[in-house]
Amino acid sequence: MVEDKTIVDFDDIVAAVNRLKGVANKTPVMTSRNLSELCGVQVYLKCENFQRVGAFKFRGAYNCIAKRLSNNPELQQKGIVAISSGNHSQGVALAAKLLGVPVTIYLPKDAPPSKIEATAGYGANLEFFDREKDDRDELAARLIEQGVTLIHGYDDPDIIAGQGTAALELMHEIPDLDLIMTPLGGGGLLSGSMIAARAYNPKIKVYGVEPELANDWDLSIKAGKRMSIPAPQTIADGVSLCTPGKLPFEILKDQMDGVILISEAEILEALSYVIERMKIIIEPSSALVVAALMKGKVPLAGISKAGLIISGGNIDPKLLSELYS
Amino acid sequence: MVEDKTIVDFDDIVAAVNRLKGVANKTPVMTSRNLSELCGVQVYLKCENFQRVGAFKFRGAYNCIAKRLSNNPELQQKGIVAISSGNHSQGVALAAKLLGVPVTIYLPKDAPPSKIEATAGYGANLEFFDREKDDRDELAARLIEQGVTLIHGYDDPDIIAGQGTAALELMHEIPDLDLIMTPLGGGGLLSGSMIAARAYNPKIKVYGVEPELANDWDLSIKAGKRMSIPAPQTIADGVSLCTPGKLPFEILKDQMDGVILISEAEILEALSYVIERMKIIIEPSSALVVAALMKGKVPLAGISKAGLIISGGNIDPKLLSELYS
Repeated sequence: MVEDKTIVDFDDIVAAVNRLKGVANKTPVMTSRNLSELCGVQVYLKCENFQRVGAFKFRGAYNCIAKRLSNNPELQQKGIVAISSGNHSQGVALAAKLLGVPVTIYLPKDAPPSKIEATAGYGANLEFFDREKDDRDELAARLIEQGVTLIHGYDDPDIIAGQGTAALELMHEIPDLDLIMTPLGGGGLLSGSMIAARAYNPKIKVYGVEPELANDWDLSIKAGKRMSIPAPQTIADGVSLCTPGKLPFEILKDQMDGVILISEAEILEALSYVIERMKIIIEPSSALVVAALMKGKVPLAGISKAGLIISGGNIDPKLLSELYS
Repeated sequence: MVEDKTIVDFDDIVAAVNRLKGVANKTPVMTSRNLSELCGVQVYLKCENFQRVGAFKFRGAYNCIAKRLSNNPELQQKGIVAISSGNHSQGVALAAKLLGVPVTIYLPKDAPPSKIEATAGYGANLEFFDREKDDRDELAARLIEQGVTLIHGYDDPDIIAGQGTAALELMHEIPDLDLIMTPLGGGGLLSGSMIAARAYNPKIKVYGVEPELANDWDLSIKAGKRMSIPAPQTIADGVSLCTPGKLPFEILKDQMDGVILISEAEILEALSYVIERMKIIIEPSSALVVAALMKGKVPLAGISKAGLIISGGNIDPKLLSELYS
């Protein structure tokens, strides 16, 4: 899968921009006087909660499928699959629909009904697997054997290039950013964002933010190799993974400036702040990057403008209710 | 108070734009493919929920106080007052703070703690009155006798001119709108919006939207004179008034295209839709204009682009919780 030593470069992101033109939303960059005062720097939020399917994941999925489609006329018949209960599945489902490719999404049996409905709403065939009994890697291998194209959530250069287009839009709008942060799950978003941002400003600081309860990146960066943790129980479901992605880890390990860890209470505090004060709905994973600045966890020497990628807005309605009850 | 036959004209709104420059937020205009499909026209939301204090009311309050201040150097000593439990009080409090004028806000004793805190947070002196026992008009008269400047929520040409700046920004961005709608409470927002919008497109359709349970405008327009209703019990607290404003009624009665009525269930449905699908927090009054289009209550012959003023985002946290429980 690794195409060359650089894996993904700026040209790949520019190519993704062209594929996404007129298809992805050019999401707004929002600011808040109060948030900037609280954080001590000018803060710019790139609002991917306003992206199609409510998350940045649409960018990578569409870029990846559109590129594969143009190289492979047989894809139309055989179709594509994704294995995910999260925003990736909705991104793949919508991208496939727009591109006219048959798509099957494998969801865990116990996925929330709202996610199942949303994915079905984009016209995908749904299959269910058992989180406990079924091995995802075996499932993936079996599907690939059948000739279908599996779209991975982050371990794919075309996914990474697509995710980088959000940061590219942000840098285009605010070219003198000197810090960029994203939530850190598989690492596709941060990888693409770093490549895009460094093309504009080679010295820009790049941090990833993850929950204390899902600290696989922190452990891995410290160890210099990918480390796994037991299934994490964080409220930030979008980054609740056990192991860093292979390609993202290769891209980020020597190039990123650090991993910042956030407690569950800090996630909730930042989440409430953004919803109440900024009047936008974000998902808990996106609150990570806001919390990192609000809680003074980011080295700010020499920093005056910080860009945060708000990854999505697909919050569990139950959590929204609990925040205010 | 009526300065001339036209009460407020486009030049007053342009003057307000200049006063508000660098002070008010230039709020974003948002769109949603799904909402436009549902409504059958291109829908543009002018998002005053992202305005300072979370509502358009800041525009009118700042314009009014800034103008009075420049004409009256004694204002600084005597200060200003407002009587309101809603967004107007927060708009006046912040505007006065920014302009360095002492300000006292009269709030009903039973105002929600969140509103009291927010108003106090802008540095206003707070006084409390009893909704049942105290007469607001008497209170206002007494305060004016004391020489302070009372800032009315809508019955004031400078307030109306300030509120019109939101629609002016919207028309500047989308000049070929052929319909504009706002929630209808006192009528200041719709008055200013109509004057601004007609300067760009004299034929633009202009509708106000109010709850069925607070149908004072509908009754008044039909009667050709201002009619009062008993204190309404609508969830749309921002437009829960008994009587149309005097100046707004003069401006609107022969010029607006109609009043649209929305049920409580329709308000809740539109509110949930915007929060869940568009990922922005709006208050129930703002859901009125979305419901009017979603529910097919607006004559759409010849209409292809509709502009909606989203008045604010200060939703009662309890309601937000209940929506999703």
